[in-house]
Formats: sequence, structure tokens, C-alpha cells
Amino acid sequence: PKVVALPGDGIGKEVTDAAVAVLKEVAPDVTIQELLIGGAAVDAAGVPFPGEVEAAVTTADAVLLGTVGGPRYDTLPRELRPERGLLALRKALGVYANIRPVRVVPGLEHLSPLRPEKARGVDVLIVRELLGGLYFDSNRGRSGERAHNTMSYTVPEIDRIARIAFWAAEQRRGHVTSVDKANVLEVSELWRETVTKVHEEKYRHVTLRHELVDSAAMLLVSNPTRYDVILTENLFGDILSDLAAVLPGSLGLMPSASLGDGPGLFEPIHGSAPDIAGQGVANPAAAILSVGMLLRHGLKRSGAANNVDAAVSLALRSHPTRDIGGTASTQAFADAVLQALS
Amino acid sequence: PKVVALPGDGIGKEVTDAAVAVLKEVAPDVTIQELLIGGAAVDAAGVPFPGEVEAAVTTADAVLLGTVGGPRYDTLPRELRPERGLLALRKALGVYANIRPVRVVPGLEHLSPLRPEKARGVDVLIVRELLGGLYFDSNRGRSGERAHNTMSYTVPEIDRIARIAFWAAEQRRGHVTSVDKANVLEVSELWRETVTKVHEEKYRHVTLRHELVDSAAMLLVSNPTRYDVILTENLFGDILSDLAAVLPGSLGLMPSASLGDGPGLFEPIHGSAPDIAGQGVANPAAAILSVGMLLRHGLKRSGAANNVDAAVSLALRSHPTRDIGGTASTQAFADAVLQALS
Ligand SMILES: CC(C)[C@H](C(=O)O)[C@@H](O)C(=O)O
Ligand SMILES: CC(C)[C@H](C(=O)O)[C@@H](O)C(=O)O
Repeated sequence: PKVVALPGDGIGKEVTDAAVAVLKEVAPDVTIQELLIGGAAVDAAGVPFPGEVEAAVTTADAVLLGTVGGPRYDTLPRELRPERGLLALRKALGVYANIRPVRVVPGLEHLSPLRPEKARGVDVLIVRELLGGLYFDSNRGRSGERAHNTMSYTVPEIDRIARIAFWAAEQRRGHVTSVDKANVLEVSELWRETVTKVHEEKYRHVTLRHELVDSAAMLLVSNPTRYDVILTENLFGDILSDLAAVLPGSLGLMPSASLGDGPGLFEPIHGSAPDIAGQGVANPAAAILSVGMLLRHGLKRSGAANNVDAAVSLALRSHPTRDIGGTASTQAFADAVLQALS
Repeated sequence: PKVVALPGDGIGKEVTDAAVAVLKEVAPDVTIQELLIGGAAVDAAGVPFPGEVEAAVTTADAVLLGTVGGPRYDTLPRELRPERGLLALRKALGVYANIRPVRVVPGLEHLSPLRPEKARGVDVLIVRELLGGLYFDSNRGRSGERAHNTMSYTVPEIDRIARIAFWAAEQRRGHVTSVDKANVLEVSELWRETVTKVHEEKYRHVTLRHELVDSAAMLLVSNPTRYDVILTENLFGDILSDLAAVLPGSLGLMPSASLGDGPGLFEPIHGSAPDIAGQGVANPAAAILSVGMLLRHGLKRSGAANNVDAAVSLALRSHPTRDIGGTASTQAFADAVLQALS
């Protein structure tokens, strides 16, 4: 099988190096092709998502992404920004389902901004629709003194992401919370109806609750253990998944998977962290756990995935990096994972 | 001067009673007219925002609102829902600026879901645009398998709310954080440009920072003391203001003001709390502090407003209600406020 690795910008390079080393260790038969994306691709090729990258990723079995973006690129025209590269990559792969597990690691409750008794036991999976809503609708633009974007969804778009959420809940604690703003928005009414229909047709053994997005933002902070799987549309998911991501206390701990009908995209949720890039101190745990998700969902090798997850858990205890109160370097952490694996 | 009081549904009735008693005490010359809105108006008059209420509020000097909504009304057709009454009320009054102060009360840090060292000193003012964006754009609806809403803004709409935020910051610590999603949305680009322009033209003595909404959701939890005034559009403001509202640990503590060119609307931010409605245990602090905002912004009586705020601070200490770990009833709390005032 072929995996395309796209380190991207900032600490993306160093954490992806660590992740690739782990992938090679547990899946030596995998061919890894490394290419540029984001700001790095703008610097080298003039565009954030070059045609050859598109050709490579769409014929790969899975894609491992680092991070894109950085202050250096913020003044580029819109179509050259690293974020555009990311959106184009998602679109090219057709990855409509972004999946982010957020878990407060037992024993690491003290890292959370929440009081330990609130943080303890938090274990949420956010399922975010990734190719619809305000981000992609082509009815958008500026004219004179006015600008607009459109939040639209169709039944099939909602239906397919709802199935992913229910399927994921089946393998967890069996609860889905669907988040919308159905008391105000028509698009949310359609969302709620469609999710309810999928639930009634096929997933009655999973519980389904609907919550308004404002209320969910509150409850994620005041009572986060109430959630198992959160299902929501693109923008709400962007906000809620980042909100949830701060609960474990370090963004360096969380992987994500973006899935569609073709190759999946696997990436840490943290940003490019220009302030520490190149110093070799970034926590590669999220990138390595993204390799775990890649093995599980992309290559269907759940044995190897479990091994990676377990090795990361060990390394978090034995070689904590700076963000979680330790002193281990990126390399030292990666070595600890490799050693645990061998 | 004339104030219209709209108790609404659930605990709205009991907390508004308490707030009206305080208003009468500090401003005996004010005429108070009490009318129904929301579910209570649906029950009595068949619609959530009757014409006579519209006539009364638009000719008042200020409007004091309780809370609207409740599970009993959730199955009503969309146009009869209590929330519709609220949106229609905002529109009728032209209140485009929703202002919500969120403060962790010194000495009450232990109520916060955050660790005390994160909660200490939180003091944010959220300025939310209240009449634009996805909530009100008439380009919306459902057709067949698709539904859509439109997030649109015009320069004048952004300009006027930006001025409110800068003006508020001048009277506080002098920092505005404008929140958008300008890396993806055209409407956010216009937002950012317009806010920047207002800043450069008139408010260079206030600092201005731009943040993306996903990042702001994170930072409000992981580092809330970084904020002074947060300026944002309607939907982002709905989410972020509710998120911020959980930081003090009880929704019973926070008032809000919605301002436009006519009479302002003043209301507690909590909901109708059907689970405790009618029991006389709801915390009326937020409703009474809304009277404080009404006195300050609606009637320009800042002396009386300061007295109300101070009396509430005392009562919170001497007669805490259940939500903040005490046993005082709604009435006992209100009496303590009245006594402190006399
Ligand atoms: C960079 C940006 C376009 C992106 C998004 O909002 O989808 C990021 O915030 C994320 O969540 O992956
Ligand atoms: C009831 C609803 C329409 C309202 C809103 O979203 O504006 C509420 O959530 C609020 O924030 O006042």
C-alpha cells in the first residue's frame, strides 16, 4: 500500500518525521511518498495544493498530513493561502466525515483547564461534516458594500454523515448528540429531520439527543462527560471540536481522521505553532496517534493501530514533552514510542 | 419614563417580579406596564408577540424581559414558537447590539467549571451583532431535498456594531478582540476589513486583535483572562456568549442589554428553567442586574445602576441562592437586595 505524507508547515515537518518513522516501524511494507502542501508548496511551487500532489493523494491508500499555515502566509491573496490548500485537499479526497476523539488521559487530568472532577472521564468523539455548509457552498461572494456565504445542506449529505456518527457510537457507548440551531435555521431543521430519520430507520439501538449549538458549547465545558458522540455540520463542528480539544490540556495529544469513499486523511488537530517550529520540542503524540487512525481506518490494520496507541500511552508517561509538563524532545518521545513498539 | 416588563415563561415570571420590585424601589417615578410574551402570549393570545405588545414596547423608554420558551411549546409550528416572539421583539426594537458582561465574581471562583487559577479575574464583555447574519437574512428556506440560510452583512451593519464595541472598550480596559472566520468566509473578510477601518479612523487608542472563531472558542476556556471586549456577528456571538456564560459557574448571575437607536431590551441570559419554575428558588440576580443595565443604558441613571449592582453583590454574599451553593429563596434574595438599597 501507498501512503502520501504531507508534512506542511511549521512543526508539521518535525511531527510528521516522527510519525513516518513509526509508520515504517509497524508497517514496513508500506510505500511512503513525501510531498509539499500549504505554505511550503507555495514557497516551492507557487500554489498551496499543486497538481502533482492532487494526483498522488487521490491514488494513495491513505494520506498523512502535518499542519499547514503560518503568519508568513497570512498576507497572501486568498487563493494562495495555505488554508485553501487544505480545503482543496479535503475536496479532492471527498472526505466528508471528520472524526476527532477527545479524551482526557487518565492521570493527566491536572493538565486540563477544567477542575479535575469535571475533566475526569471526558471521552468524546466529534463527527464533523467536512465538505458542506458555509465553507463550500458556491453561492458566496462580495458585491459593493455587502458580502455573503450560504449554509446549505442536502438530505444525502446529512444522511451519510449521520450514518458515520451512529456507526461510531455503536462501537463506543451508544449515544449520539446531534447539534444544530433548529430553533432558528431552516438548514438545521432539515439536519434534525434527516438525522432523526436515519436513527429511526436503522439505529434505534443507539440513543439520539438533539441539542442547540449554543447550549452544546456550554455543556461541553460545564458537563463534558454527558457526551459520547457529537454529530454536527461543518462550521459548528469546527468550533465545537476545537473547544472540546482544549479539555485534555494539550493540543499535542489529539489525532483526527477525515474519511470519505476514497483514501482517508489523517492529521493532528494542532496548528503549525510557528513559535516553536524547528526547535525539536513539539509533541509528536498527535501525529503518531494519527498514524494509529490511519492504520485502523485507512489500512484496516487494527492490530498495528492498537500497538501504536499503547506505545504512545507508555511514552506519554515515560517521556513527556514540554506541553505536558516534561522535558523530552520530539526525537526522544518518538524514540520512546519506537522502543515500546519493538 | 415608561418601562414595559415582559416576564415571559418559566422562571421568567418569578425573577421578573423580583426585578420589578427593585426597579420600583430605586426609580419610583417610572411607570411599569406588564405584558405577556413568548409561550405565555401564545397561551393567552395565540401568538408569541402580540400586536399590542409591539405597540407598547416601541413607545417605551426601555423593556425588561424575563425568559421565553419551554418544552411545552417546542412542538408548535415554527411561527408560533416563543423564540420567534423573541426574534420579532428584537427586530421591532431595532436592537442590533447585544451586550453581555461575564465576570467571575471574586470569592466565587469555586463555582466555575474552570480551575480557580484560570477562573480568577475573568471579566469579559461580549458585544454580539443581533439583527443580521444567518438569523435574519430572508434568503432562506427549504426546497425538496435541500435547505439553506444566508450569512450576510453589509458595511453599515458591521460599522455600527464595531463602534459599540470600541466605545465599550474605552470604558473598560481598552482591548477589542474581533472574532470571525476570515480564512474561509467572504462575509468574515468584510467584517474584518470594516472593523479595522472603524478602528483606524476613530479608535486607535483602543487595541484591536482579530481571532478566528474556532481559536476564540479554545482560548475562552484555556485563557479567558486574555479578553476584554469580544466583538462578533450574530451566530458566533450566540455560541461564544453562551460559552463564556458558563465560566462564572451559574447562569443566574448574568444580565444582558440589547441596544439600538430606540428603547433598549434588558434581560437575564439564563433560560426559562422549566425544571424549577414556580418553586420560588430561581436566582433573580441576573434579572436584577438587568435592571441595573436598564438604569444605566436605558434611563441614563448610572447612580441608581451602581446602587443596584452593589446591592446585588452584598446579597450574593449574605443570601446566596441554591445555584451558588446557598439556600435563599428568590424572595429572600430580592428582599436582601431591597434592604441593602434602603
Ligand atoms: C484552516 C481551516 C480552514 C480549518 C477549518 O476550519 O476547517 C481548521 O480550522 C480545521 O478545523 O481543520
Ligand atoms: C432563543 C434564541 C433565538 C436566542 C438566540 O440564539 O439568539 C438565544 O439563544 C439567545 O442567545 O438569546
